Amino acid sequence: MALMVVDGRLGPALAAAAERAEAALDRLLPSGDDAQSRLYEAMRYACLGGGKRLRAFLVIQSAALFHVAPRAADRVAASVEMLHAYSLVHDDLPAMDNDDLRRGKPSCHKAFDEATAILAGDALQARAFEVLAEPDTHPDPAVRCELVASLGQAAGARGMAGGQMIDLLAEAHKLTEAEVTRLQMLKTARLMTWCCEAGAILGKAPAPLRHALAGYGRDLGLAFQIADDILDELGTLEEIGKTPKKDAAAGKATLVSLLGLERARAQARMLAEQAVGHLDPFGPPADTLRDLVGFVVTRRT
Amino acid sequence: MALMVVDGRLGPALAAAAERAEAALDRLLPSGDDAQSRLYEAMRYACLGGGKRLRAFLVIQSAALFHVAPRAADRVAASVEMLHAYSLVHDDLPAMDNDDLRRGKPSCHKAFDEATAILAGDALQARAFEVLAEPDTHPDPAVRCELVASLGQAAGARGMAGGQMIDLLAEAHKLTEAEVTRLQMLKTARLMTWCCEAGAILGKAPAPLRHALAGYGRDLGLAFQIADDILDELGTLEEIGKTPKKDAAAGKATLVSLLGLERARAQARMLAEQAVGHLDPFGPPADTLRDLVGFVVTRRT
Repeated sequence: MALMVVDGRLGPALAAAAERAEAALDRLLPSGDDAQSRLYEAMRYACLGGGKRLRAFLVIQSAALFHVAPRAADRVAASVEMLHAYSLVHDDLPAMDNDDLRRGKPSCHKAFDEATAILAGDALQARAFEVLAEPDTHPDPAVRCELVASLGQAAGARGMAGGQMIDLLAEAHKLTEAEVTRLQMLKTARLMTWCCEAGAILGKAPAPLRHALAGYGRDLGLAFQIADDILDELGTLEEIGKTPKKDAAAGKATLVSLLGLERARAQARMLAEQAVGHLDPFGPPADTLRDLVGFVVTRRT
Repeated sequence: MALMVVDGRLGPALAAAAERAEAALDRLLPSGDDAQSRLYEAMRYACLGGGKRLRAFLVIQSAALFHVAPRAADRVAASVEMLHAYSLVHDDLPAMDNDDLRRGKPSCHKAFDEATAILAGDALQARAFEVLAEPDTHPDPAVRCELVASLGQAAGARGMAGGQMIDLLAEAHKLTEAEVTRLQMLKTARLMTWCCEAGAILGKAPAPLRHALAGYGRDLGLAFQIADDILDELGTLEEIGKTPKKDAAAGKATLVSLLGLERARAQARMLAEQAVGHLDPFGPPADTLRDLVGFVVTRRT
């Protein structure tokens, strides 16, 4: 297995997913000139024109495995990108990680103000669930309910928000390796897992295939987070588009600080191999998802 | 019509709804002793043991008109109380209305800290949608999807969050009477409207009955907000459980400051009569909802 090779398929597939997600977001986010248009602008600022759109890519690629209508996949992709954007807006707030930069531009509360950023995050989360529940997302309402309920779980106190809580507490006391892994599982891997499962839910896939995709998403998410920590340690502001060495400065333990760079890299490689292994039942149609694993652990931005 | 009379039916009905909502919230909010248990505590602090539970009451009473299973109504009531509690937690933040008191006790960011309060609000919103989408809420997934989509709309940029945005902008420029009414429509009446419609959605009511309940909820919500402004103007901290005269201190226009106390009271009475009028198609079973209108415009807390 050549994890380091990002072959020619991946670049165009990532670009295509990003373009589809951007178009869907533009269509689904509120706009207009009324009394609260400042809120629409902040929501659009937080969501549009940036980001790797990895989560949209995961939804679109996993949905394609089950021949889901592209329009349905695009709505779900936009929905998860809204949820991800809301979490970044709130994480960047002064009371949270206090970061002035995001995706190479001022974070939402710097471009607008704190109150607007809080409300924009809140409204993005509401819109994410609303979009999933709307009839255009899937003809079967049972499928839409399952998307909403599982995203609620992935985003809530036992998912992304819970992970961010642990992350904040980590500034006060040093976490162990097991605690850091739990943090990363909740904060990052849960939502990536959901993205991959979303394709299976949309495609009404049999349980074993859904579980295989969930396993792929989880291991990919954990590998992604370690790669992120390594970038945070080694990267420059220009490369990563946000303030580097934030975790070290805040006294937070990461797998890099706990294991050292080499063992952290080995851990990421091991997770990457596991992720690829989960894709065995899907054969060649999953090649783009396989390629993504190499990209995620070797990316420089 | 004797709007001032709160007869003997209403008190026990309000108490019963509050008890049912409290029990459902206790059941549906996360708990446990794990790494993020501080987040669960903040969510419970924000939701449990306080409030008039008007929104839960509206869901429970409107659902009863269509003989909806009480367990289903209780879940929806808990869900809207979570959403309402999240909005209060975020509204009280220093960057927003900066209020240290809520329901007579320290607001969430004072009892915990700002970051925890932001996350608790976020996780409450996610849980509210998750609960609606779960199979226990209604056997028909189309009903659950309609609840999720319509709550998303009522809570988002064109609903509650949009209203809060206008409210924040109101500190910078004086609003007209029409703008204040729009603000109150979005910030308060949209969610109360939803509560009343939720009963009709759960009961698969015919469209005219659903619209009648929506009209009731809207007029009740607008009357409620005027009554709230009057209390804010006249009440003491002990009576209202939060800092009085906040709007005046912030230089915000309310219907009281624009119209004066007497015309504001007359407006509330007019809305109250309209609200009661919407209930005509329901006959005696809607008597408790009729009684509520008098309570809302004459309440002292």
